[in-house]
Amino acid sequence: MANGYNGEILRVDLSRGTISVDKPTPEFYRQYMGGRALTSYYLLKEVAAGTDALAPENKIIFAAGPVTGAPVGGSGRNSVGAKSPLTNGFGSSEVGGYWGAELKHAGYDAIIIEGKSESPVYLWIKDGEAEIRDAKHIWGKTTGECQKLIQEELGDEHIRVTQAGLAGENLVRYACVFNDLSHAAGRTGMGAVMGSKNLRAIAVRGHKKLQMADPETVSSLAKWFRDNFKLIKRTAGLNEAGTAALIMGLNAAGGLPTRNFQQGVFEGASKISADALRDSILVKRKGCYACPVKCKPVVASGEPYNVDPTYGGPEYETLSALGSNCGIDNLEAIAKGNELCSAYGLDSISTGASISFAMECFEQGILTEKDTGGLKLNFGNAQVMLQLVEMIARREGFGKLLGEGVARAASVIGKGAEEFAMHSKGQELPMHDPRFKPGMGVGYTVSPTGADHMHNMHDAAYTQPGCMLDELLALGIPGPLPCQELSPAKIRMLVYGSLWRHLLDSLVFCHFCLFMPGQITELVRAITGWNATAWELMKVGERCINMTRVFNFREGMSRDDDWLPRRFSVPFTSGPLNGVALGEEQLRQAIDTYYTMVGWDKESGTPTLGKLQELGIEWVADV
Amino acid sequence: MANGYNGEILRVDLSRGTISVDKPTPEFYRQYMGGRALTSYYLLKEVAAGTDALAPENKIIFAAGPVTGAPVGGSGRNSVGAKSPLTNGFGSSEVGGYWGAELKHAGYDAIIIEGKSESPVYLWIKDGEAEIRDAKHIWGKTTGECQKLIQEELGDEHIRVTQAGLAGENLVRYACVFNDLSHAAGRTGMGAVMGSKNLRAIAVRGHKKLQMADPETVSSLAKWFRDNFKLIKRTAGLNEAGTAALIMGLNAAGGLPTRNFQQGVFEGASKISADALRDSILVKRKGCYACPVKCKPVVASGEPYNVDPTYGGPEYETLSALGSNCGIDNLEAIAKGNELCSAYGLDSISTGASISFAMECFEQGILTEKDTGGLKLNFGNAQVMLQLVEMIARREGFGKLLGEGVARAASVIGKGAEEFAMHSKGQELPMHDPRFKPGMGVGYTVSPTGADHMHNMHDAAYTQPGCMLDELLALGIPGPLPCQELSPAKIRMLVYGSLWRHLLDSLVFCHFCLFMPGQITELVRAITGWNATAWELMKVGERCINMTRVFNFREGMSRDDDWLPRRFSVPFTSGPLNGVALGEEQLRQAIDTYYTMVGWDKESGTPTLGKLQELGIEWVADV
Repeated sequence: MANGYNGEILRVDLSRGTISVDKPTPEFYRQYMGGRALTSYYLLKEVAAGTDALAPENKIIFAAGPVTGAPVGGSGRNSVGAKSPLTNGFGSSEVGGYWGAELKHAGYDAIIIEGKSESPVYLWIKDGEAEIRDAKHIWGKTTGECQKLIQEELGDEHIRVTQAGLAGENLVRYACVFNDLSHAAGRTGMGAVMGSKNLRAIAVRGHKKLQMADPETVSSLAKWFRDNFKLIKRTAGLNEAGTAALIMGLNAAGGLPTRNFQQGVFEGASKISADALRDSILVKRKGCYACPVKCKPVVASGEPYNVDPTYGGPEYETLSALGSNCGIDNLEAIAKGNELCSAYGLDSISTGASISFAMECFEQGILTEKDTGGLKLNFGNAQVMLQLVEMIARREGFGKLLGEGVARAASVIGKGAEEFAMHSKGQELPMHDPRFKPGMGVGYTVSPTGADHMHNMHDAAYTQPGCMLDELLALGIPGPLPCQELSPAKIRMLVYGSLWRHLLDSLVFCHFCLFMPGQITELVRAITGWNATAWELMKVGERCINMTRVFNFREGMSRDDDWLPRRFSVPFTSGPLNGVALGEEQLRQAIDTYYTMVGWDKESGTPTLGKLQELGIEWVADV
Repeated sequence: MANGYNGEILRVDLSRGTISVDKPTPEFYRQYMGGRALTSYYLLKEVAAGTDALAPENKIIFAAGPVTGAPVGGSGRNSVGAKSPLTNGFGSSEVGGYWGAELKHAGYDAIIIEGKSESPVYLWIKDGEAEIRDAKHIWGKTTGECQKLIQEELGDEHIRVTQAGLAGENLVRYACVFNDLSHAAGRTGMGAVMGSKNLRAIAVRGHKKLQMADPETVSSLAKWFRDNFKLIKRTAGLNEAGTAALIMGLNAAGGLPTRNFQQGVFEGASKISADALRDSILVKRKGCYACPVKCKPVVASGEPYNVDPTYGGPEYETLSALGSNCGIDNLEAIAKGNELCSAYGLDSISTGASISFAMECFEQGILTEKDTGGLKLNFGNAQVMLQLVEMIARREGFGKLLGEGVARAASVIGKGAEEFAMHSKGQELPMHDPRFKPGMGVGYTVSPTGADHMHNMHDAAYTQPGCMLDELLALGIPGPLPCQELSPAKIRMLVYGSLWRHLLDSLVFCHFCLFMPGQITELVRAITGWNATAWELMKVGERCINMTRVFNFREGMSRDDDWLPRRFSVPFTSGPLNGVALGEEQLRQAIDTYYTMVGWDKESGTPTLGKLQELGIEWVADV
């Protein structure tokens, strides 16, 4: 078997209760690598067109990659993918922590879950052995209780658990999957797919060391990162303040999503900032497998919120989604909301965005107390935000509708509520306003998972060297571009950046560790022994993007789905970006440019046969 | 200035007699790198559409690249480019020896020659100083005499000379440019462009060391190559026998061009083989700057041919072009023909192909002794072959017409002579039959320089690891393909291989040294200090291909010019490939596939705007 791999993919049929093992060839691994690319392959091959995302015929895949579990910072990740109940297209989300590395050490490269168990179960994998176990006693429990119960019943506190929560059990469409209680595979509703299969969790324990072609080089890269990450502007910043540092920067620039993206400046920003966090509820910082950066906050508080440090703490997306974008500046309440999302298995981005959507509808009179069961959904109401998180997870009352996501909820509510539903392809926008970051806005439209920031254009981070721009410089992009620019050169940044991030999500490697492309290439070579180049690796990312594109089109999407809410074509009316919008014509042209740059038909937005052939995946044209 | 560069491009206006210096930015160098890509840029920018290739308004560019002159095998090359008098499109040919390295050491990255001198001149460059000198006393001399005269008059036998010969002075359309008497920038008629400008030679002497970011890594790569090239199948073979080894292999496979590509098996192959060469006229082997491989033969003989070892000796292309393809098995005569081509500055491929064309016309009765001035142009007539080489170089008698190249000559002769003119885009086929190597056949059609094997698909070499296939494996191509296969997977090999070779020709680096793409990337990084990746480097190759494509279309070419002579759609009637052809429909489909793979419009074959934008060269769309 190729170095870097176990050579075994576990296949679990929950309907039949059977477990088997696939043994792909080294050539297969080299083409489809792991993580998101490998998932794209299996979904296209094995999930029939038109399958209901919450039906037993959907499959959910937990995939590591060649670098997962290697002793180097950034390698603790895995992806979780399935047809998405949120977008009805390709779903996948990548997640850190320790579970992915543990899976590799337990002897598998990925797990394919098929069918549906008759009653709640969890999967237990230990050193090459796998077992489906009863989970009735865990069903309905918080993620914290679930993990504890599993570790106790199996008698090993070092067991790593990935799991859906109550929200997943209840089929909330943006229920997510948590590794180790505080690391979320947040987007595209993978928790609901687990729930639909009556699969609550996958517990893993492994002692196998990753086989590497050149362990010395891997060690030296790991050492370089340990010795230098505090000298790299971006990782040093993450080490000091996590992503929370974005709050004040975005607010100052006028791009902090506020009150459902109505504004870009939040008057309470300083109260939810990294400094405020550090000076109040921050207990410590923690990180992922083998990583020295420790970018994740751990927070705790006493009355009235009693925030539990078991669940980590809020990062930027959550601070904005449950905070500024709901008009809330109560940091402890936001931290409590974060805890609840983690305890129930909710994506804090979509949860916050659903609540802010409801708040704007309420303030606009489209929703009344009659609709909400008496809740006063005004912006800034922290108490009602927390109530709604509970109700969404439990699918209680008005929470049931919100748990469908803003696109479906708006369509049920009618009365023009669609105007306030901030989504693309059915997935709620993360906390990056397309007027402030127009490249990311274009990225939302063409991303396989809709409004997703993870493999997208980071306009602001590409305005100067020393940050994510450095990756692009190493890929031959000549230099920085202004944040607001939306030229062909910016679209080119989006294209190259997106290829690179899809590669990272196929390796699976952290986007934050900021090894340069040359170093990542060296790492892949050292682990696998393949004589690989950055060209080959970028093509893995491109293969992935094209497979997901075909998947989405097979499921009924078209270029019409590549679009943004109308709000972003209307200028801001205040703040530093007063008067700035992302015009519809500008957006249309940018999307056309994107299509022709990546080899998609300009009229239909489908990958050309030539592009699929160039990527060695002409079989995709037949699906 | 960027490491690896001098930062100065010499600009010589021969009409005005002025010399100036351009100082491009580091960003310019990183985008356009050097060699062929840099030449494409200047030709597009500075040579107006419709310029006669032999008019003063054409420009000829001698370009080194970032690796040229570095102390590592493979780095002794430069490119020579201009609008081609043979194809009327983009012309460029790359050449080894010592001259390119010397140019870098003399302080320049490239030389742009403009205008036309009133009388013969040569250019003399020494350590950052340049001078236009009278060459009346050199005009008409052999290349050997020219080099000696220049070295003597400047008093330094270490001076390196690149030059056109008598053929270039006489505007033979496939006159070439020689470095150091025995290294030819053979294709596309660059010698005629020099001749049209009354520029006979450029003499260079330099003592400047190349500035490198990381000399230790460069040294270690050079050392690795010195220590290992005999262990690498391909370089070991080149070291032992040069390219002449191809003769017997191709003959056994049925793909040795014989009698103007009528057959693929030559009954006299063993008499012109590497073994025959070694056992008879071989004196020694020699090589290029800093290279341990020494793949070039030096031959000598006594009566009747008295082959002069000053001019090296025949390699595969010459052995076939003047040998098997003319039906000639007299090795000494072929060696003499090679000497004459070198002494007069003729491309031995186009020279041989023109002679074999004439021989077939003669045998078919389309040409008679009346047309040829009494010459009996039968296949196998070595004496007449040598006479024709002389006559072509001197533009005497029937040689004048042959010096126009087979496309023009056939059109003058008429009577169906076109059937026997083996060219694509006006350039004569090198010694690789498209029926044996269908990928290369497709490559001839889409190559910017027509029938050119240098940046093309080497079907036979891609049938097994250990050879050129290894480069593709490192670029993510999954594995070997049979020589005769012409599938989308084969076209993909062509595309990736061609990008890679255009990159090598832009660095400018030897195609034979067979450093793997990862090592070339490391070399470029170590020399330049750029944080470059193989992705960026492949994009330099792609930029080059697209610029040359637009240049050709601007000069009036269309997709109709992407075609092969009809002969190759007719099956061989003997030998191992009896019955094998490259069908017209098969070829058309392969070309269509190529277009869509590389982002060219399927109908017109032009690069899409999106592709140009993706490469950061949208300015090209305006020309």
